[in-house]
Amino acid sequence: MPSALILVANGTEEMEFTIIYDTLVRAGVKCTSALVTSPGHSGHDETEPGAVQCSRGVRIVPDASLSQLSASTTGGYDAIIIPGGLKGAETISQSSLVQSLVRSFYESKKLVGMICAASLVAKTSQLPRQPLTSHPSVKDQLDKDFEYREDSVVISGNLITSRGPGTAFPFAFALVENLCGAQKRSEVIPPMVFPPGTPL
Amino acid sequence: MPSALILVANGTEEMEFTIIYDTLVRAGVKCTSALVTSPGHSGHDETEPGAVQCSRGVRIVPDASLSQLSASTTGGYDAIIIPGGLKGAETISQSSLVQSLVRSFYESKKLVGMICAASLVAKTSQLPRQPLTSHPSVKDQLDKDFEYREDSVVISGNLITSRGPGTAFPFAFALVENLCGAQKRSEVIPPMVFPPGTPL
Repeated sequence: MPSALILVANGTEEMEFTIIYDTLVRAGVKCTSALVTSPGHSGHDETEPGAVQCSRGVRIVPDASLSQLSASTTGGYDAIIIPGGLKGAETISQSSLVQSLVRSFYESKKLVGMICAASLVAKTSQLPRQPLTSHPSVKDQLDKDFEYREDSVVISGNLITSRGPGTAFPFAFALVENLCGAQKRSEVIPPMVFPPGTPL
Repeated sequence: MPSALILVANGTEEMEFTIIYDTLVRAGVKCTSALVTSPGHSGHDETEPGAVQCSRGVRIVPDASLSQLSASTTGGYDAIIIPGGLKGAETISQSSLVQSLVRSFYESKKLVGMICAASLVAKTSQLPRQPLTSHPSVKDQLDKDFEYREDSVVISGNLITSRGPGTAFPFAFALVENLCGAQKRSEVIPPMVFPPGTPL
């Protein structure tokens, strides 16, 4: 069973987080949501972290704290996935722990996924210049360092990026195909009952 | 500012819940998520309820407990919305408190929204025969009592129903249009960056 580490912080976009987590679980991926806190913030680093306040007020309880996980188990995951939401993505992008993990996953040819404002993490982690997309609102922070694209999902080797809540389903299905294969992707979609003609 | 009561229970489909809540907040609707527990269950009826475990493992902290709200404030909401997830929808559909609230909202011509398996609540609340849709998996429990449709979103007066996670965005936009008008609906969609050609 493949496994994925999904980062979350105060201000994370709750639709993007939930669509990724839920869709990967439907595909049989073992998902662990891991809380990232701002530097100097010590309030949420217990073994069982408290709820984060997402971008539109939904409160989600992470499965673990990233700083606790990192000492032992992060190397065992097959993927690291980062949802957007500007405030959450800024917190995550500024974390040196996240930056070193993202570089490590990327260099190990493991799947690295970023959607919406989370594509900022590709820059702060100093990933090599390559095709990438993001939410339009942060394009001007990325288009000098990457080959910026406006496709809904951009697959560049083991880096998969996407644009916003509206592209979160196609993004999640691209992650499923990478981790579980095209057959699994085709099994996961029908029970969700998309409107006929939906581009996925 | 319109207000909406969004029900949640253990087993609620987390994508449907989150897409509804987040999209309504983006439109300026004041959202309150309210926990529904099984009869005889007393563990979550504190003023600040604990997290629910959603259908694919995401844990969400409700804003309030429905049983606490009902005594005082539920009459002040402009809408009651119920996400799916079979186990959560069964708990919600069996609640006599929910059934009386749904009938009260419906008869007051306030918006009643149900998606996926939550359309079962239309039956347990004994809403009048009318056009309705649901997740295909519960169609055979509904098609004798309602004019069953297979459209992604079915608007029947003040009852709006929909099918599953894949139709949750069009459903949420139909709720926005009902509560806030077509102009607000058209403002909320572009920042979400849907793929070109997405039927909404």
